[in-house]
This record gives sequence, structure tokens and C-alpha cells, in this order.
Amino acid sequence: MEKYRRNERMSVTLKLLSDEPNRLFTLSHFCELFGTAKSSMSEDLDILRKLVSSFDLGEIETITGASGGIIYRPRISMTESLSYIEKLSRSLSGTSRVLPGGFLYTSDILADPIATQKMGRILASAYYDTFPDFVLTMETKGIPVALTTAHALGVPLVIARHTSKAYEGSAVNINYVSGSSGSIQTMSLARRAVQAGQQCLIVDDFLKGGGTAKGMVDLMKEFDVKVVGSAFVIETEVPAQKRVTNVRSLMTLAIDDNIEGEEGDLGYAVVRPSKWLKEAGL
Amino acid sequence: MEKYRRNERMSVTLKLLSDEPNRLFTLSHFCELFGTAKSSMSEDLDILRKLVSSFDLGEIETITGASGGIIYRPRISMTESLSYIEKLSRSLSGTSRVLPGGFLYTSDILADPIATQKMGRILASAYYDTFPDFVLTMETKGIPVALTTAHALGVPLVIARHTSKAYEGSAVNINYVSGSSGSIQTMSLARRAVQAGQQCLIVDDFLKGGGTAKGMVDLMKEFDVKVVGSAFVIETEVPAQKRVTNVRSLMTLAIDDNIEGEEGDLGYAVVRPSKWLKEAGL
Repeated sequence: MEKYRRNERMSVTLKLLSDEPNRLFTLSHFCELFGTAKSSMSEDLDILRKLVSSFDLGEIETITGASGGIIYRPRISMTESLSYIEKLSRSLSGTSRVLPGGFLYTSDILADPIATQKMGRILASAYYDTFPDFVLTMETKGIPVALTTAHALGVPLVIARHTSKAYEGSAVNINYVSGSSGSIQTMSLARRAVQAGQQCLIVDDFLKGGGTAKGMVDLMKEFDVKVVGSAFVIETEVPAQKRVTNVRSLMTLAIDDNIEGEEGDLGYAVVRPSKWLKEAGL
Repeated sequence: MEKYRRNERMSVTLKLLSDEPNRLFTLSHFCELFGTAKSSMSEDLDILRKLVSSFDLGEIETITGASGGIIYRPRISMTESLSYIEKLSRSLSGTSRVLPGGFLYTSDILADPIATQKMGRILASAYYDTFPDFVLTMETKGIPVALTTAHALGVPLVIARHTSKAYEGSAVNINYVSGSSGSIQTMSLARRAVQAGQQCLIVDDFLKGGGTAKGMVDLMKEFDVKVVGSAFVIETEVPAQKRVTNVRSLMTLAIDDNIEGEEGDLGYAVVRPSKWLKEAGL
């Protein structure tokens, strides 16, 4: 007789797979954990595969052969992604979040564990086939969503800093032109943080001119690392021309000064799902 | 006949609970999702409750009554917590991570999605009964573990900055004395980030003198917010006296210059599970 019932094996398996997305687990791993036969475990996984797909909870891939096993990815369908981002866009639109200088208050959303988990899964879904070895972000506001994206991709997060800190050890510094202020800034990364020949996905919260993003691309050149893409939570509509290419954003932002609001309003934020997401989600 | 089998209902339920820890789900939520009767769903949850407990995957609490429901917490047993932190301590110990100035290279661990998920769950386990409304951290290195702790607690993360940024809006600034350098620094938090009367758990990566932590406590006073505790990944053994009280750390660090190593070594890092964890884990 089996030590655990199918419902118990399946529940625990999905929980463990979900805790470590995009990691290859061997079939034996679960067989040993439950003290069950490979045939039973394979059947469990067959049911789980159909189940996560029908509830849009991701995908389970079975890789056959000697180095085979099971991989779970919290891939979200583009329809569901678009629907979520549409809701988020509406909550960011309006006058209440517009700050002096045409900035948008997003600190709460960008540090919300559930929202960033969802955004990270949506962004990761678009990059599984590019096989990044790590996610790179620039401090500070993009760190949470970069972490959740890295988690969904099953890779480490690497954080570039404004200045090299004593507790990072020897570092590579580059200078870059900030898109918004036009001033020259420094970006720093510990030498031991990444290895030559690796592949990197850039993730950050906000893309305006693209100065910071271009800085990260240049920084990766110094490390001999290939950038497979750049992903952002929000991209401004203006300027249309960014300093980086191969970009995907979840939302676009325009501040409209012509929409009449209350006295003291600083403009009306128009936040929409990005063109990329809209096309992919249809 | 039921639309979904027990094994399917249980697997999806645990997955959804696990995605949103410490959130109250109503029983009806799952009954509607699966088109099943309350009696069946209650039985599912009874099995799940025993299951997550026996695999040390957390706890499921059922709250009865009109405003009742189900809450999942990824609480890790202290024995398992101690065992994990012992392994982590060993990997941080030695000469290879010691940097000039007696600092330890921890950027990789502190940005690793799996390690921070585990550390966040361990820290959260110690604070469920203090009911924080949010987790506060100071940029930059503590952000990932603060996010995973906040996720496990089911509360938002709030990030204090070194300077007030244009895109944060009006902010409260305080000055504090940095414990390590003795210099006066500024800490800033957007006025709309927290509300008076809330409760806050401070989470950060490193505690030495406690200057930054004390700064966060003072900052919360300005907002009329109660601090329920301060949690750190690593605490230095020296100085023994910190500027904050009510502290729990996962590990302690001492740099020993007397252990003989290779030429060029900057000291030997002795990292151990904290006294709190050792006592709780026995």
C-alpha cells in the first residue's frame, strides 16, 4: 500500500515545484520523498500537468531521458496577463498619483509582494525561451519586481549600485548619462557578481529616456555578458525613441495636462497596457 | 458528480493559498471555484491541514463563524529553520568572503530568490503573533529579504530611501548617526507610504552598531507608527550593545584575525546561527 494518497502526493508536489520555479526536479526526488513507484508518480504528474494548465497556474514540463525530470514554470497566459495589467493600469491612472515634475507615485505597487509576484511571473513568461543566467537591476525601486522575475525564471538576481560600497569588494564602475536629468552618473557592480559568457535579462521599474538601461547594457559589456532583453514595469510614451532596443514593458504612461481636474492637480496620468502586451494578449 | 476530484481541488487550493500567505480566504471562494459543496471542501482542508504540517510546509488555520475562512502561513519549524541557517552559516564562513574593512560579501545570498524566500519565511514565522501592518526596510541590500518576509506575512513592504526622490512626492526626512562610520546621514520616506496608528516590523540585512535601525525606529515615531520588532539576516558580535532593542537575527558574524590563512587573506569570518535561533530550534 502507498504511504501517501494521490491527493497528498499531488498537493505537496505542486507546492514544492511552485516554490522553486524553472528548476529541474528528478522523478526520483518525488518517488523517494513519498516512497512511491515511478509509475504512480508519473500518473500524478500527468494529472497535475493538465490541472495547472486548466486553472492557468503555469505549466509543468516533463523531460524524458537520463538527465530528465520535471520543471514547473508559473507562466501566465497572455489573456490573463493583459486582464491583470488592465486592472493595474486603471488603478494607476488619474490625478491622485501625479507628482511635481510629471512623475507618478508607484512606490506602493512596486513594493507590494502580491503585485510584484504577478508582474514578475508575467515578465518571466516572456523570457523563458531566452535562457538568462541572471536578472540584473539597478537599485532601488525595481528590486522587488526584479526579484520576483528572477524567482519565476529560477535564476539569481544581481543588483547594480550607484556607488561602489565597501561591502561589495572590488567593483567595475561605469559612467552613464541619466536620461531624465542629463547628468553623468556612476553605476557599480562587484567584480565577483557575474561571470564572463553569461546571459542577462535586465529588469527595472521605469523606462523614460533609457539612460540607466543603456548604462546597464554597457556595464554588461564590461563583464562580457550578453543581454537577452530589457523588461520594465512602466515605459513613458515620451520620448518615443529610447536609448535601448529589445524592450518589453507592461504599461505605458503619459501625463496629460489638458484633462481638466480639481484645483491643484498636477496633471492626469494615462496608464495603459503596453502595445506588446495588448498584441500578445489578443 | 463533482466537477473536480479531491486530488485536483486539494492541489489547486494549496497552490492558491501558498501564493497569498496569511490572507483570509472564505470557504465559499473555493466552493465556487470548484463548484463543490462546503462539506467536501471542508474535508479537503482537513486533509491539507495535516499534510502541510507533516511535511513542514507551513500551517493552515481554519477560522469558524460568519467572518471565517482559511489562512495559510508558510511557517517553518524552528528545527528546520536552524538546520537551514546552519548550512547557510557554514557557506558564509571562511576567508573567501572577507573584504577590506572587516566586511563580508553577502550580496549574492541576499539577492538569491530561493535563499531569501526561505529566510523571509523563517523571519515571518517569528512575527505572526505581533500583527505588523507592513514591513519597513532601508535601501538597498535588505530589500529582497524584506520583500519575502512581507510576502509571508501578507503585508506590504515599505522602503525608506537615503534621499527624498522626486517620484516619491512629499516626504518626511530624519537624520541619524551611522553606526559604522559615525557620520550623519539622512533617511527619507514618502508621506503617503504609511498611516498613523499602524504597526511595523523592521527587516534589514545587517546589524552592526544599530544606527540605521535606530533611524528607522525614529522615522516610525515621526509617522506615529509602533515598531513591533526588528529582524536582521546577520548581526555582528561586536559591538555587543546595539542602539536598538527587541532584535532577532538569523546569524551572528565575527571576523577572527588570529586564524591563520593563506597570504593575502583579510581575516576569517565566523558565521553562526544566532542565539535566538539556537535556543528556539532545540
